[in-house]
Amino acid sequence: MSHALRLGNLRQIMAEQQLQAVLLTDRFSKYYFARLYSASGYVLVTPDSQTLLVDGRYIAECREQSPEFEIRLLTDTAGLAQHLADIHSQHPWSSLGIDGNHLSRQAWTSLATQCAFPLQHWDTRHLRLIKQPDEIALIRTAASIADQALRDVLPFIRPGISEKKLADQIEMAVRQAGGSKTSFDTVVVSGVRSALPHGRPTDKLLATGELVTIDFGAVFQHYCSDMTRTFALGQVSSEQEKIYRTVQRAQQAARDAVRPGIRCQELDQLARNIIEAAGYGDYFSHNLGHGLGLDVHEAPALSPVNHQTLQPGMVVTIEPGIYIPGLGGVRIEDDVLVTENGREVLTQSPREWQESCLA
Amino acid sequence: MSHALRLGNLRQIMAEQQLQAVLLTDRFSKYYFARLYSASGYVLVTPDSQTLLVDGRYIAECREQSPEFEIRLLTDTAGLAQHLADIHSQHPWSSLGIDGNHLSRQAWTSLATQCAFPLQHWDTRHLRLIKQPDEIALIRTAASIADQALRDVLPFIRPGISEKKLADQIEMAVRQAGGSKTSFDTVVVSGVRSALPHGRPTDKLLATGELVTIDFGAVFQHYCSDMTRTFALGQVSSEQEKIYRTVQRAQQAARDAVRPGIRCQELDQLARNIIEAAGYGDYFSHNLGHGLGLDVHEAPALSPVNHQTLQPGMVVTIEPGIYIPGLGGVRIEDDVLVTENGREVLTQSPREWQESCLA
Repeated sequence: MSHALRLGNLRQIMAEQQLQAVLLTDRFSKYYFARLYSASGYVLVTPDSQTLLVDGRYIAECREQSPEFEIRLLTDTAGLAQHLADIHSQHPWSSLGIDGNHLSRQAWTSLATQCAFPLQHWDTRHLRLIKQPDEIALIRTAASIADQALRDVLPFIRPGISEKKLADQIEMAVRQAGGSKTSFDTVVVSGVRSALPHGRPTDKLLATGELVTIDFGAVFQHYCSDMTRTFALGQVSSEQEKIYRTVQRAQQAARDAVRPGIRCQELDQLARNIIEAAGYGDYFSHNLGHGLGLDVHEAPALSPVNHQTLQPGMVVTIEPGIYIPGLGGVRIEDDVLVTENGREVLTQSPREWQESCLA
Repeated sequence: MSHALRLGNLRQIMAEQQLQAVLLTDRFSKYYFARLYSASGYVLVTPDSQTLLVDGRYIAECREQSPEFEIRLLTDTAGLAQHLADIHSQHPWSSLGIDGNHLSRQAWTSLATQCAFPLQHWDTRHLRLIKQPDEIALIRTAASIADQALRDVLPFIRPGISEKKLADQIEMAVRQAGGSKTSFDTVVVSGVRSALPHGRPTDKLLATGELVTIDFGAVFQHYCSDMTRTFALGQVSSEQEKIYRTVQRAQQAARDAVRPGIRCQELDQLARNIIEAAGYGDYFSHNLGHGLGLDVHEAPALSPVNHQTLQPGMVVTIEPGIYIPGLGGVRIEDDVLVTENGREVLTQSPREWQESCLA
């Protein structure tokens, strides 16, 4: 979808909500509507104007990338509030919508005291909830880069390599496969450390008889993928195999249930029921998944308390896990696109119980 | 400095400011005081209690890493406000200090409406302004990793490699030299793109006669370095060489002037004067530098409007630049520790005018 169409849709939503001006402050919204991928700078949209406000570091690239925007230079003496006052005098609005989930409390308070018009909290999370075909193509590519990277690092997943070195190999493989970088700090946890859902890779060496969990993603043209696989290094205990097979069943059940109209909490409950029935309910200590796009964690949350229903064009992760202190953990995660009739699973790496890595 | 000493210092500052409770919400403060390196979770400190509040993903590692803290589990039904009410009933406070520069406006508003006590904005930026010897040692290591990585990629800085591939080589070199990763998305810009201070690496190939600017850093045990060098690929124009030599003089003058007692704005002005005298004042479009530590951009800002004085233990970047649209740009950046008597320059890579990369 062209940026002109996106701006048109934004203005339609603003009209429906009787908002005469919105200020976008987070990097994802700024990129989505105005091609500015940065934590700095602002995008102001009114029914008949569109403005990028950036400091000197970004002026040249904004002029090149976003020719349909007026570009204004933020300086120490001419800051955001001064520019807004000036634009407001030409395109007056009664209140300015800003997403208070992104702007800090101090930045909000400071801006509010400097402006002659009120600020109004305006949630932007719904704007990017339904992915357009061009976005889906980019997420699909990011997912296939993750698949390719995992294939490329498989020979390294064996006893003797450190968690850290394996994470480094994944970073390199993602970039070699065409990704700009990994989409977050890669998780590589082995042995008892695999019971840490968000553990950082350490100098610990992988060893025979351990579970190792790898959670990573690729960024492709600013869009993210996110995938987790757990491997057994040679023969592991029957309980370790049991938790793997339990997570596998829970993950498949939830994955197969993705379709338009199902509630986020229903999907979460479906996986949670299977894990509870196997006796591991206390060890699935997080949500089933989350939305995915420009941000690696975005709406909708697949949580026990989210009543939202899935719609075609949403992309979510399905990632149940079981984490038993002292024993280890298992998580399996895929990226799933909600389609008109069901789903398309974007990450394709094998999910079968694998003990073959020792070779 | 041990975490016990850090907490002691924090409580002393709280006592001086008559604050009976503070809630730390940003990952750097949480790591500094409680070893929790995550965007999730909170640290509550009162004169006689210290509590980590985290969701299920972090419980196991917090118990292991932070044994001196009470650990509380955040859930969908027992959230932050409920736990705070419970702790408040045991250790009452009149108001709770939170840094409103970090917490979002919505999170602040939501928490304020749920709490029986007022929230009070409390700036945490000064807490980590003066680095302790153990922190300085880590930043020094992060700086030497960046130096090593740059030595290792020098053979790749030549015509024919793409900006993106060079950035990938830098990522690998940082990790091979002992860094956990680069400290931000590496900037590699060449030719006319070198006039983009924050340009992202593209598939553009480096070519003879171009300037190429590389801005990157290493993370070592969560501490950051940040360094920039500009190279000439073979012979470049006399104006390109002139802007290089101008930036070099400005950078050296500011670097040599770092000492306790000098104002941040004085340092900025010193470099700016040299660039203005050479006729390039309009093309130095950013601040001279910034503080550096757990965060790659922290206080103090070396800006034209910051009257703060440098003190021993601060670590700052010195990074003047000149960016001329259509011609190219130059930036030279080092990390500098303020010492009792002057300075220690932590990044050591050569800054001389180099045309030797074509070999």
